Amino acid sequence: MSKLHLLSPRGFKAAGVYAGIKSKQANDVGLLVCNGMATAAAVFTTNQVVAAPVTIGREHIAAGKLRGVVANAGNANACTGRQGYKDAIAMCRLAAEAIGADPRQILPSSTGIIGHPLPMDKISYGITHAAQFLGDSLEHALDFASAIQTTDLKRKAAAVEFNIGKRKVTLAGVCKGSGMIGPRLALPGKHATMLAYLTTDAAVPAAVLRKLLGEASDLSFNAVTVDDHASTNDTVCVLASGLSEAKVSESAAVKKFRGALLEVCQSLAEQIAADGEGATKVVKIIVRHAVSEKDAKAIARTIANSPLVKCAINGNDPNWGRIVSAAGYAPAKFDPDRCVLTLAGTVVFRAGQPVKFDAEKVSAALKSAVVEVDLDCRLSKGDAVCWTCDLSKEYVTINADYHT
Amino acid sequence: MSKLHLLSPRGFKAAGVYAGIKSKQANDVGLLVCNGMATAAAVFTTNQVVAAPVTIGREHIAAGKLRGVVANAGNANACTGRQGYKDAIAMCRLAAEAIGADPRQILPSSTGIIGHPLPMDKISYGITHAAQFLGDSLEHALDFASAIQTTDLKRKAAAVEFNIGKRKVTLAGVCKGSGMIGPRLALPGKHATMLAYLTTDAAVPAAVLRKLLGEASDLSFNAVTVDDHASTNDTVCVLASGLSEAKVSESAAVKKFRGALLEVCQSLAEQIAADGEGATKVVKIIVRHAVSEKDAKAIARTIANSPLVKCAINGNDPNWGRIVSAAGYAPAKFDPDRCVLTLAGTVVFRAGQPVKFDAEKVSAALKSAVVEVDLDCRLSKGDAVCWTCDLSKEYVTINADYHT
Repeated sequence: MSKLHLLSPRGFKAAGVYAGIKSKQANDVGLLVCNGMATAAAVFTTNQVVAAPVTIGREHIAAGKLRGVVANAGNANACTGRQGYKDAIAMCRLAAEAIGADPRQILPSSTGIIGHPLPMDKISYGITHAAQFLGDSLEHALDFASAIQTTDLKRKAAAVEFNIGKRKVTLAGVCKGSGMIGPRLALPGKHATMLAYLTTDAAVPAAVLRKLLGEASDLSFNAVTVDDHASTNDTVCVLASGLSEAKVSESAAVKKFRGALLEVCQSLAEQIAADGEGATKVVKIIVRHAVSEKDAKAIARTIANSPLVKCAINGNDPNWGRIVSAAGYAPAKFDPDRCVLTLAGTVVFRAGQPVKFDAEKVSAALKSAVVEVDLDCRLSKGDAVCWTCDLSKEYVTINADYHT
Repeated sequence: MSKLHLLSPRGFKAAGVYAGIKSKQANDVGLLVCNGMATAAAVFTTNQVVAAPVTIGREHIAAGKLRGVVANAGNANACTGRQGYKDAIAMCRLAAEAIGADPRQILPSSTGIIGHPLPMDKISYGITHAAQFLGDSLEHALDFASAIQTTDLKRKAAAVEFNIGKRKVTLAGVCKGSGMIGPRLALPGKHATMLAYLTTDAAVPAAVLRKLLGEASDLSFNAVTVDDHASTNDTVCVLASGLSEAKVSESAAVKKFRGALLEVCQSLAEQIAADGEGATKVVKIIVRHAVSEKDAKAIARTIANSPLVKCAINGNDPNWGRIVSAAGYAPAKFDPDRCVLTLAGTVVFRAGQPVKFDAEKVSAALKSAVVEVDLDCRLSKGDAVCWTCDLSKEYVTINADYHT
């Protein structure tokens, strides 16, 4: 898995260049291109304040096929009025001209500062330049991935290989996201924003791809929260070149592809939590046996969003009280007298009362890179997982000292 | 108004003493007593994890009358099993014996660490001792108020005088609350906890008092959030001695009393926000002309709970984008193209786009003790106000370094 990257699936090229949009010299315009027509699906933010590229992207994805993605970082093209729509369309036209496609076959994405018009001279230079450097090596994948980053400190990528029948299929993805992370994505229907792009050489009918992406996003990107703040620009897009000739249409193949898609999306989601602004660790919240999956999600997310829980984990404090009381005010049925709370591998609360535990041992376990909070509600069959990170002074520094 | 205090309404006495429950020497057991029988009403946390004193308090308030309140800080008597209920009942019995009342006429409250049994020897000493020092001076009111404080840095009190007919009526209140503040209070039907006690000498029928307290709490305590974390112990209780002989039963008198009650409750709510853990300022969020009051409340609370908005205000950053995008993901109808956002007195966003403004001037205005965020949705007639505070590094220090 380690040698696979975004351009391992057959049929894709990418590039990323510095066009002078970001204040520091780092890639800020990227192109991800399928050599032929790809079937495609995308989910977008459900925020009612929507950036222009999301509105244009929703139109372009409607046909279920794309030639590629054009993205920039440093400017979100959000709250930019009519000019914003024109600029998002111009980005698609420039990318389409450079690769020989129709502008409606390009999905645009932007991330960065909001309320400022896109610097179209720099965008134009970047797109033309990137088109000249398209390639399918690991380096090209990395160049594209860096071109969508803002406050991210780490690269976030995942990929899997599997067989459908006798055909080898590869599925890969990259994403960005660090602050303003609380995606509520939906099939068409922010400023540090969450963006993710996936490639595969499987042959997936557009309707199937669309349905599977919606399901996988719910259990991955929609289950990660850094600050619960849904951005105006959140976008996840998957492109399927079909070049493996492995058809994902019969149930066994769909099941296999669904599993692989979920694995890649969940890996990317956890990497976003790990790179959350100021994060020193990932907190994986597992809620089991709630009344329903919906209840389990609500409990997991309420715990994940409690600043008190996040600060306690930052301080390696086995503060079960904050976790249990957060579950208690979640919009879901919860009974403290039935639940069992396991924190970093140790049962700390059971049947309405704390269990005697070695606080120093649990505190030491809380220093791990990934801390598991496992709450068994003992009510029914609803399970959910949510990823977040701890809340540190560094998060406040990043977000109080940053100026518009 | 400044000379009025909790014991200005006729018919009340109070005391607060140090009984050794808190680690630092500061009052931790308090008694608030009505000389005769008071009509009474109370609202309690709706958290499904409920402290023993809340369960007992719900039972005792059912009759609509009380002789008084017994409260301790330093230990929340939450998640303490059957022993917790016995101890909460014992607190009532001890207080009742000391003042010559029935135990069911006493409302118990506790705040502090959870999961530890109450130290009943200290509680017993404290109650007996406090009963010996009951009085109705300002000093007595302050002693009681300090006995319910935990991480609070400021005293929180409010009082008003008004006339009903020719009778002068006084209404006063004290409260505590600094962290774990996101009350969701309801008429019977959360460790740093919110507690508030109000006294009045108006003669208010229990059913009226109950209805008015429910309404006033919704527009005050239920509209304050520091960290949106509803505690297991939140309690607001109002006692009416009736000694002013001013009857609150006809509509004009009810209206006047309702206004006074709302004023005192809102003042206390704003004081809680001002004393939020790590707070350097109050943020008052005013949402106007939403589709409904429910929508307006949802938008105001979503803005108030955004860590990004709270950090920006901590850093005096006029970051309209975070505010508008928070409104956009609130569970309420919102249209950025119609709204007008006024930040600390300056219009910063209108009709989908930022307005040109003097960022330095707005940044200077954001240094006020109370910052107003005024969002006019221009949709319909729903209005709401929500109080919160900024998010500082100090909040993280308090809550990451505190250990259970």
